[in-house]
Amino acid sequence: MSAPAVLPRHPRLISLEGGEGAGKSTALASVRELLLRRGHEVVLTREPGGTPLAERIRTLLLDGRGAEDEPLLPETELLLMFAARAQHVAQVVRPALERGAFVVSDRFTDSSYAYQGHGRGLDPQWIAELERRAVGLRPGLTLLLDLDVREGRARTSGRDLWPDRIEREQDEFFERVRAGFRARAQAEPERFRVIDAARPPQAVAAAVAAAVADWLDAQERA
Amino acid sequence: MSAPAVLPRHPRLISLEGGEGAGKSTALASVRELLLRRGHEVVLTREPGGTPLAERIRTLLLDGRGAEDEPLLPETELLLMFAARAQHVAQVVRPALERGAFVVSDRFTDSSYAYQGHGRGLDPQWIAELERRAVGLRPGLTLLLDLDVREGRARTSGRDLWPDRIEREQDEFFERVRAGFRARAQAEPERFRVIDAARPPQAVAAAVAAAVADWLDAQERA
Repeated sequence: MSAPAVLPRHPRLISLEGGEGAGKSTALASVRELLLRRGHEVVLTREPGGTPLAERIRTLLLDGRGAEDEPLLPETELLLMFAARAQHVAQVVRPALERGAFVVSDRFTDSSYAYQGHGRGLDPQWIAELERRAVGLRPGLTLLLDLDVREGRARTSGRDLWPDRIEREQDEFFERVRAGFRARAQAEPERFRVIDAARPPQAVAAAVAAAVADWLDAQERA
Repeated sequence: MSAPAVLPRHPRLISLEGGEGAGKSTALASVRELLLRRGHEVVLTREPGGTPLAERIRTLLLDGRGAEDEPLLPETELLLMFAARAQHVAQVVRPALERGAFVVSDRFTDSSYAYQGHGRGLDPQWIAELERRAVGLRPGLTLLLDLDVREGRARTSGRDLWPDRIEREQDEFFERVRAGFRARAQAEPERFRVIDAARPPQAVAAAVAAAVADWLDAQERA
């Protein structure tokens, strides 16, 4: 069982990526609405999580309870993320794609490259190995909601009374994450659409929906 | 950051491996006693687990609660095992070895080759990648408590009122695991000592202690 060198992009798998406060939730709803209007089945999901077991792994990753004096190491974080993702892909993503549905995921593998790779400094070659072994596919379209780190923080400061373990990181961590996402978008321009998220959530959602509509039209013409 | 091709064996890291009912607990106590009598600091630990966070991952791996209709996939199991192991090695094993203590672990990486590799059929090359990336060392000495699968079952049948997710596997799974352990022992005879565990626990423990004493003497002469 050897892993394929290049991962196939699935034309019905769409991911939304970006930091906190960029308007991902509103944008996800608008993508779902657009796909439903066009007559498609849509599965809205998220990472880390998306299955009961993967949500339990998410809790381990984000709450940090019961281990206040034990740091969760970058390597452990990466392996937990891919454990949850392996489960999510096999139990939710692939079955939905195989029956013809669209899958719209709030975060997907690009988040591991950005957060655990660029953010935590783990070797991207290791992340690529895990992606080949445990995921085996990439989205056909990835929408990157790009936003200034301080602006995103300001928008979520009232919302997150109890910021999770990753949200408690410093700005310089999130600057590396943002740079990581932008570098990935530059490296794969045919898969990524970068959306300026410095606008109000409704405007961001409209721009996201327009990008998805353009992409669907181009797919249908091809 | 590239991974080393051959993993170093640490002379103060000792692992005990083997199936259920082989007398591992009694043997662990005798190894600890021997090392203490010789004036060494001893850290007794176990996998999966060994830190508060890794024990929470162990619970996810073994209880299977909250996801009765969701199978825990082999890939997810492997990644959770290595997430727990990365945390255990960095937080417990390495600090203890660095201060000069002996570490005696109830299971270590060989269990992943045997259970997730031979037992579940996952690619051993993938396990080797994870071992290089997330563990980076092997025990100096590994004691394999080898026992007929049915005999081991018979010994634990009264003990395990609530067998865990892995204990509920069929005999043929455990036959593959046993064959996996034996193959690893054959491939690395200088690291492994195979102990016939078909004897009463006290006799197994005595054989284990004798093997450890021989090995310590040989180390001191070297």
